Amino acid sequence: MTQAKDRINLKEKLALFDELWTPKLVAKVNDTDIRLSKIQGEFVWHHHDDTDELFLVLKGELLLRLPDRDVRLREGEMFVVPRGVEHKPVAEEEAHLMTIELEGQPSTGNVRNERTVESPEWI
Amino acid sequence: MTQAKDRINLKEKLALFDELWTPKLVAKVNDTDIRLSKIQGEFVWHHHDDTDELFLVLKGELLLRLPDRDVRLREGEMFVVPRGVEHKPVAEEEAHLMTIELEGQPSTGNVRNERTVESPEWI
Repeated sequence: MTQAKDRINLKEKLALFDELWTPKLVAKVNDTDIRLSKIQGEFVWHHHDDTDELFLVLKGELLLRLPDRDVRLREGEMFVVPRGVEHKPVAEEEAHLMTIELEGQPSTGNVRNERTVESPEWI
Repeated sequence: MTQAKDRINLKEKLALFDELWTPKLVAKVNDTDIRLSKIQGEFVWHHHDDTDELFLVLKGELLLRLPDRDVRLREGEMFVVPRGVEHKPVAEEEAHLMTIELEGQPSTGNVRNERTVESPEWI
């Protein structure tokens, strides 16, 4: 599926997948991806050279570890990690996120490992 | 205020203003604006030559009139109006929106009237 041409219901989209740390593409605004993710546990420290990354919590709680501090986000809260800034997303319980970033960015930024999603699939 | 460097709580941001049809800037992702708006009544038909526009309903209900159909969006639903496509947002009751679009775009696109916001203020 490419660009959604109809109404996008976030809860319905989130019900379509269970995989953790596997962002799915639900919309594009120009060259910008709107992605949904389910996460639990600790991700890898990484950064994105070419894009800022916005995290919006849709469900649960996200701990964003940054070089100089931790940012805790609850449902309805968001934070923009500027390009180039190291970060490590952590969630003790399963959390659901919307992320907004430049298209074509792998999920692990400058790092490649078994969790890397090079290009999210449309749902 | 320029770019938010801290947690952005959507409900707290929405409590900061009451004006209708007056988008406020709460975050930027690269060259893309994340805006919040309160609306009620009928807006003007318009289009944006240079940007897609994503509408996400945070509260209430939005009727997006398009040239060939109407799209009704409730809380947690979103829709992307592609660049160049005429649209007219309508809300019978007060509704709260997040919109995502290229920076520097006036709120009424190709139209100028008393409702035009050339550049949203940061909150």
